[in-house]
Amino acid sequence: MPIVPDTNLLRSPAQVRNIIRQGGWDQPTAGLAPGFAQANLVILPKVLALDFFLFCQRNPKPCPLLDVTDPGNAIPARIAVDADIRTDIPRYRVYRRGELIDEPQDIIKYWDDTMVAFLLGCSFSFEQPMLEAGIPIRHIEQGCNVPMFITNQQCEPAGDFSGPMVVSMRPIAQNQLVDAVKITSRFPGVHGAPVHIGDPAVLGISDLQKPDFGDPVPFKPGEIPVFWACGVTPQAVAMQVKPELIITHAPGFMFVSDLEQNKLAVI
Amino acid sequence: MPIVPDTNLLRSPAQVRNIIRQGGWDQPTAGLAPGFAQANLVILPKVLALDFFLFCQRNPKPCPLLDVTDPGNAIPARIAVDADIRTDIPRYRVYRRGELIDEPQDIIKYWDDTMVAFLLGCSFSFEQPMLEAGIPIRHIEQGCNVPMFITNQQCEPAGDFSGPMVVSMRPIAQNQLVDAVKITSRFPGVHGAPVHIGDPAVLGISDLQKPDFGDPVPFKPGEIPVFWACGVTPQAVAMQVKPELIITHAPGFMFVSDLEQNKLAVI
Repeated sequence: MPIVPDTNLLRSPAQVRNIIRQGGWDQPTAGLAPGFAQANLVILPKVLALDFFLFCQRNPKPCPLLDVTDPGNAIPARIAVDADIRTDIPRYRVYRRGELIDEPQDIIKYWDDTMVAFLLGCSFSFEQPMLEAGIPIRHIEQGCNVPMFITNQQCEPAGDFSGPMVVSMRPIAQNQLVDAVKITSRFPGVHGAPVHIGDPAVLGISDLQKPDFGDPVPFKPGEIPVFWACGVTPQAVAMQVKPELIITHAPGFMFVSDLEQNKLAVI
Repeated sequence: MPIVPDTNLLRSPAQVRNIIRQGGWDQPTAGLAPGFAQANLVILPKVLALDFFLFCQRNPKPCPLLDVTDPGNAIPARIAVDADIRTDIPRYRVYRRGELIDEPQDIIKYWDDTMVAFLLGCSFSFEQPMLEAGIPIRHIEQGCNVPMFITNQQCEPAGDFSGPMVVSMRPIAQNQLVDAVKITSRFPGVHGAPVHIGDPAVLGISDLQKPDFGDPVPFKPGEIPVFWACGVTPQAVAMQVKPELIITHAPGFMFVSDLEQNKLAVI
């Protein structure tokens, strides 16, 4: 029987991970442990890890690395010293040769001593500072997922890893564009400044109401579409390689780290 | 017979590399191609590359990566698209199992398709903006090398790579400390903000006049020692592993990149 979490426990990243580890949370993680960074996960065998690491290094806007584990070591010690990456995410996705074969609550049976876990920053971490500055975030208002689009911008390739950048889009009022750029620029570890403001066609996007991932959101008069590099990029690219085995988090079911979001800000 | 370089040619990074490639420059590179970033070099076989990459990822202040090449590919394409890392540095150092075996002008005979080149930012790139802001740099005034010290601060280890952080030290006038921090903070790709201001003992340094590397520099009244993470760290740490083969640049004989220093500034 699942534990019913005390809501106070959901404020501490370590307690959130503990509840998840015991099978007591099987929902998206948005809103848990407020103020702490959540991370995207990509796990690959060591034989592919160097190329994927190179891919992330060359594409820091879509692939901002928060931590990379030693081969076979399940502890992402730089961002959560007591965590276990095999059990501390509520739902995983396991792909063999590009095909989704499992969506388990832990990945212990898939783990071996060649596995390397990449933890990547997530735009959740810059939405909070935008909200605090009075910039509304439409998909949060609407209670839906952020709209994401595959662009015509090719990532810098590495080994077999290549493909287009994916972006997330948020409608921003014209008089808040400057603040939106300033605030997100301070967070390069979670995608940073926008990659484009204004014209979807520049990115090869033909219809803002038909996102490739996530949900469409309405615009208010005078709002401008603003595009940020998106953490779906590395997963989409890694999937394209169709490796023998790749494990990711299920969309929205993120890793809750001990990193304070405020500490991700530069300057 | 070496070519005598036309000094105008020494302003363009591509021309500087071309002269070096032809054996026409066998001196330190400080002052060449002003305004363009120079880089430290570490070359390792692929079998050690993932661990060294992890080490750099975990220690971004001493090991700011500007580019990492694909195994066997000698072109550091992100920072100099027409360069060849085997020929474009005026003098290399080749170590076998920790022992210096050669200081050649090119490394073609040592290169094979397992080699991965790591190019790391260098504090040359933040000294220019400090000078432009009116902050004197003592070792430049004295025409000597910057003093460097092994500290008591352990780097975050990765695989066999571990060891203390090395810092460089510059005496700064008290009324210029704020500007020195502000300016260098803007350059995280070339070591960024200082790691300490004021007390050498905090870093385990007993005598500022006895640096572990480089040359001692005099202090003027009221000047405070300021310490920055140093690019000697990854070389010192890599050497400690005593790998079968490691190749670095000779101290002061850097790789001249096409990256404009100004573009390394954040915000």
